[in-house]
Amino acid sequence: MSEEQGITVSKEENISAWYQELIVKSNLADYSSVSGCIVYRPLAYSIWERVKEEVDKRFKEIGIENAYFPLLIPESLLEKEAEHFQGFTPEVAWVTEAGNSELNERLAIRPTSEAIMYDSYSKWIKSWRDLPLKLNQWNNVIRWEFKHPTPFLRTREFLWNEGHNVYETKEGALEDKVRVLGAYKEVVEDYMALPGFIGRKTEKEKFAGAVDTWSMEHLLPDGKAIQGPDYHYDGTNFAEAFEITFMGRGSEEKYPHQTTYAITTRQLGIMIMVHSDDRGLVIPPKLAPIKTVIVPIPADEDYNERILEKGREISSKLEDCKIDDRENQTPGWKFNEWELKGVPLRIEIGPEEIKENTLTLVRRDNQEKITVEQSEAKEKVEEILEKIQKKLLKNAREFLNENTRETRSYGELKQILEEKGGFIKAPWCGKSSCEKKIKDETTAKITNIPSKYETPENEECIKCGEKAKYWVNFAKSY
Amino acid sequence: MSEEQGITVSKEENISAWYQELIVKSNLADYSSVSGCIVYRPLAYSIWERVKEEVDKRFKEIGIENAYFPLLIPESLLEKEAEHFQGFTPEVAWVTEAGNSELNERLAIRPTSEAIMYDSYSKWIKSWRDLPLKLNQWNNVIRWEFKHPTPFLRTREFLWNEGHNVYETKEGALEDKVRVLGAYKEVVEDYMALPGFIGRKTEKEKFAGAVDTWSMEHLLPDGKAIQGPDYHYDGTNFAEAFEITFMGRGSEEKYPHQTTYAITTRQLGIMIMVHSDDRGLVIPPKLAPIKTVIVPIPADEDYNERILEKGREISSKLEDCKIDDRENQTPGWKFNEWELKGVPLRIEIGPEEIKENTLTLVRRDNQEKITVEQSEAKEKVEEILEKIQKKLLKNAREFLNENTRETRSYGELKQILEEKGGFIKAPWCGKSSCEKKIKDETTAKITNIPSKYETPENEECIKCGEKAKYWVNFAKSY
Repeated sequence: MSEEQGITVSKEENISAWYQELIVKSNLADYSSVSGCIVYRPLAYSIWERVKEEVDKRFKEIGIENAYFPLLIPESLLEKEAEHFQGFTPEVAWVTEAGNSELNERLAIRPTSEAIMYDSYSKWIKSWRDLPLKLNQWNNVIRWEFKHPTPFLRTREFLWNEGHNVYETKEGALEDKVRVLGAYKEVVEDYMALPGFIGRKTEKEKFAGAVDTWSMEHLLPDGKAIQGPDYHYDGTNFAEAFEITFMGRGSEEKYPHQTTYAITTRQLGIMIMVHSDDRGLVIPPKLAPIKTVIVPIPADEDYNERILEKGREISSKLEDCKIDDRENQTPGWKFNEWELKGVPLRIEIGPEEIKENTLTLVRRDNQEKITVEQSEAKEKVEEILEKIQKKLLKNAREFLNENTRETRSYGELKQILEEKGGFIKAPWCGKSSCEKKIKDETTAKITNIPSKYETPENEECIKCGEKAKYWVNFAKSY
Repeated sequence: MSEEQGITVSKEENISAWYQELIVKSNLADYSSVSGCIVYRPLAYSIWERVKEEVDKRFKEIGIENAYFPLLIPESLLEKEAEHFQGFTPEVAWVTEAGNSELNERLAIRPTSEAIMYDSYSKWIKSWRDLPLKLNQWNNVIRWEFKHPTPFLRTREFLWNEGHNVYETKEGALEDKVRVLGAYKEVVEDYMALPGFIGRKTEKEKFAGAVDTWSMEHLLPDGKAIQGPDYHYDGTNFAEAFEITFMGRGSEEKYPHQTTYAITTRQLGIMIMVHSDDRGLVIPPKLAPIKTVIVPIPADEDYNERILEKGREISSKLEDCKIDDRENQTPGWKFNEWELKGVPLRIEIGPEEIKENTLTLVRRDNQEKITVEQSEAKEKVEEILEKIQKKLLKNAREFLNENTRETRSYGELKQILEEKGGFIKAPWCGKSSCEKKIKDETTAKITNIPSKYETPENEECIKCGEKAKYWVNFAKSY
């Protein structure tokens, strides 16, 4: 592969340099003239559109409707919930001028829309009959981070869904938690092929303004954890701050219970980083805009026309199939290009295949070559694409399992963090002071308290030795 | 109808007050705490999503791909094309601070994305093989207008598509003009039921930075014209400013030809204003999220269960059908509510209908009552919805035709403008000076030069009396 065409750094050697080169060379995305903001080229954007579509379909089944609220939020509104405000102001981009005028009040570009949405909610919600209210936005937000940006994983502008529901009771809010997190999990696992731990965040790590936060936590190939989709139960905190009240069934005035939930374009970065390799992108078949590419292998002139004809015939039978009939490039060059761009399956047709009525399929994920009859192209291709989809999840799951280690010893925890990374399952007493000490000493935090972990019966906190309340995951986090 | 439930001002009496009350009371949209920015509630947003989906499908057939570019544009980039910059700076919202820091350079919130997109284009486009490049964004933009805002029609933030294509030649650019404007026309006419004049803008009225602009111009019920979707041919203006060059087929370095095109949420406002009435919204069936609503008419207890059962049975057979089985509201109250919210067809089921195996249908657009057999509900409902769709376009077209008047006399032009409004077809010499004088004297502008108007042979300019080059439309414009 020529240096111009391929990636020059290996994933194992320098994952960060590899990732940054990969993203640009594959035409997935590009840097822009605005520091920390990237361009989503059609390849990245089409994957996001597919993710969005799948999540959105599931939201509709939960009765969640889409709406759109203003991008700009007056500072006085943002200030209404103090904890929330403090959590976000260090990263807010402020509009202070319009045209040739100075504004009377600064306007924040939404870092999230609680303030502007709940201002409307307080007008709309009057009675229990107006509840539940389940509204979602698919939009762009800005958080002006000063840490080093990484495409998708940490950018100053990103795309996301932000759902903001309102319920009569806490029970309603928690019922939908299961459904919303279930929707996210389905799309993240079955489409993006990303496994992770779903669980509750600790008091210290929860969202600014929330009573409780749940998240899905993934593992990157370098052993660092990274947060995926989340769900926040806000109790009546925001309702009190934004004066949202309703007349209850017994005609009493009440504060409703609120939740928020999100999945972001960060998820694309996780997907790319987990599955891709030194040849380029690996895109799970269900999200690949091009699922198969047909590359004709030129022979003498007698064959060439028949090869192209066969290619077109096969292509017309397959979903999202592209035939690469460019004459100015060699098959080898084309192989490299489509591998770089992550097309899940390549179909080669040359004189051999014409003679034998076969097709040669090459899997992007493991380079396996498979010969199939032309007559069964459609079924075989679909079968193999499904296999690839499953294999990617299986690989990622194996990596996650191998890199989730259990310990009861603080010494061992430190050693694993230093030598191997990954998640470390350990017992914890539930006190923020222990959590904080561990973070200060190791930089590892509690990513969450996985729902699937049992409650410890006779365990001691890995830090203070007191009775442990939870098995939790520690990890150095992105 | 109680005052709380219905609209208190009539459309004929005071269209602006009617419109503003209609939009809020129907739950279509709401005002927000940011002056000039509105909230798109689920009803408005779902209509926009449908419009978007239909346009997007047609774009894909033209080979246009979606992408996403940063919201913020450095001032130095925006300045690169001087005419374009001057056109927009009076309305730009500027970000000058982030977190607690002042920025080194002001960042514009995109009023449109030429500058940020073409900065990337100049990196991506190298050879004729990279062309055509056809990229589109569905996003939000801000133009800080100081005129009085009106929901959808003039808001400081709006949603739109902005397509930005690049071609080797002018011919390519103009070929796609026909296809893109055709796509817009199909969606605007066949879905939004809005007729209009497609034509070229004059030099004076074209887009800042363009060589030529084409638009679709609609007519509002108050006799004012308003611009719908548009298409700009930019020649090589932007390519020169942003240094976009490519190696041509003969290995010579060349500037490519560019186009941009857009449809915005303003279109929703036009649709609402044109079709709706004193009872509330009228939504064309193809865009209505709820196409039919079933209202059970209560009788004695024997019947009520059978009525509800029948309602559910019919509802399950129809697309986007809602059954309103609320027990705390009367049928009359429900009729008013669904008329206010623009549901195209109401289905009443009471004891009479149960006895006779019929359904009573009531059209939203003209209140016509139709009795159909229950067994043919599906076919009849679909047939009537289609009729309503066509009737709305027909009505709008008749209104447009009745309010497009031809004259050769400047006196008459002024009189029509004063007494009737609407479009006035008149011969024009092609000189900006005449156009400007007419605008200064009457406030009417040339909305465009409709493609379907013939070329005048022996006509005199309505202003200067010199030989006329075009038949054009004059109108007072929103």
